[in-house]
Amino acid sequence: MNTIRLILEYDGTAYLGWQRQAQPQTIQQTVEEALARIVAHPVVLQGSGRTDAGVHARGMVAHFRTPRELPMSAFREGVNRYLPPDIAVRDAALAPPDFHARFDARGKWYRYTLQNGAIRSPLTARQAWHVRPPLDLAAMQRAVRDFVGCHDFAPFRTANCDAKTTEREIYSFAIKKEDELLVLDVRGNGFLRHMVRLMCGTLVEIGLQRRSDDSVRRLLAGEAPLRSLLTAPPQGLCLMEVYYE
Amino acid sequence: MNTIRLILEYDGTAYLGWQRQAQPQTIQQTVEEALARIVAHPVVLQGSGRTDAGVHARGMVAHFRTPRELPMSAFREGVNRYLPPDIAVRDAALAPPDFHARFDARGKWYRYTLQNGAIRSPLTARQAWHVRPPLDLAAMQRAVRDFVGCHDFAPFRTANCDAKTTEREIYSFAIKKEDELLVLDVRGNGFLRHMVRLMCGTLVEIGLQRRSDDSVRRLLAGEAPLRSLLTAPPQGLCLMEVYYE
Repeated sequence: MNTIRLILEYDGTAYLGWQRQAQPQTIQQTVEEALARIVAHPVVLQGSGRTDAGVHARGMVAHFRTPRELPMSAFREGVNRYLPPDIAVRDAALAPPDFHARFDARGKWYRYTLQNGAIRSPLTARQAWHVRPPLDLAAMQRAVRDFVGCHDFAPFRTANCDAKTTEREIYSFAIKKEDELLVLDVRGNGFLRHMVRLMCGTLVEIGLQRRSDDSVRRLLAGEAPLRSLLTAPPQGLCLMEVYYE
Repeated sequence: MNTIRLILEYDGTAYLGWQRQAQPQTIQQTVEEALARIVAHPVVLQGSGRTDAGVHARGMVAHFRTPRELPMSAFREGVNRYLPPDIAVRDAALAPPDFHARFDARGKWYRYTLQNGAIRSPLTARQAWHVRPPLDLAAMQRAVRDFVGCHDFAPFRTANCDAKTTEREIYSFAIKKEDELLVLDVRGNGFLRHMVRLMCGTLVEIGLQRRSDDSVRRLLAGEAPLRSLLTAPPQGLCLMEVYYE
């Protein structure tokens, strides 16, 4: 039995997200079906995590097992011939037999992109959240530092998050501005359901001066009032890389 | 009568190009219909030129005339409410009465984007041409300099180009590499039909070593054999800016 590790890139616009569902339009099922055509048996693909409907990935990692002895090009160029234009296998490698894309993951890098300008931009609309009023970048830069480190991120998860623990470590969180685009790069050892989108939504509320720039610190300390947080929309989010030992 | 100058941004993927046709899916007609809903009379929009089916624009300039006295925000935010997500008016301004988007244009900046890598990239596929074999960037850099200056660009136009003259001046032509992306920026006083795509297709053939790196010079001098040129596909092309005095 061989364990194959894939790196996948996808434009999530047309999909219901990573996770297989009753409806067929998921990334997982689409890739499983393309792999099955190459290995000629049903495939179960295990991702390093889920991405929500409309979220993109440049470096989703997933693994599957197969008894077939095929060159790795069969799982890259070969599989890509059966995948639609908005999904591709970017790399395939033979992994140790017990490799597990989810349990072995040690961290992730997510990128969230905002377009901050009076007029929406059609060429970035599929991969950025358009925020019309000017954002106070300095306030966002002050607040973003409070995310870094080990914290209980319970306030930054969605109601249907089923994680057993809510402590996570954020390694780094940086914001850079490129013309109208704000690019938010966050790296950490793990993320709760909707956590990145809730963090970015909160930063936008701080940038709009609807929340004070100490509200991240106060939310993480359990001091802030429990007014519900803003969830940034999915199209701005991209899973950039998954880290392993 | 007021003359209004618009700057338009669009993702051309879903359109048959700029120019109005029998079929409705053109940029020109889509914008004319949105404008007509604001001014309540039929609108004829004159672009600075045409873009082909699938070509994008970040700075297409167009003008139209209307007897209405409306604030410019009506032609930006107002019109944008009637435009689909892949088209937007980025700016609107009152122009001199005799302003003409096409006849007054003094130059244009086009960008062509290539993704050069073994595996196609879904997140850039809508706005880049995927070229799989490695390109010889140094050879392309040598060849691109031969385009700069005044030349007879007759070899670099499509058969159905109806321009009366074929002399054009290229002000600058630069190639920069950003990871797998090659970004080709060309500025000139005017471009024949398919000229940018034929120039970029020829540069790719030089990068693939299917043509020698003096073939641009020889084509422009009328010395090269008339083997037909490669037309780069439309999705890599974007009209960035139109220059006026």
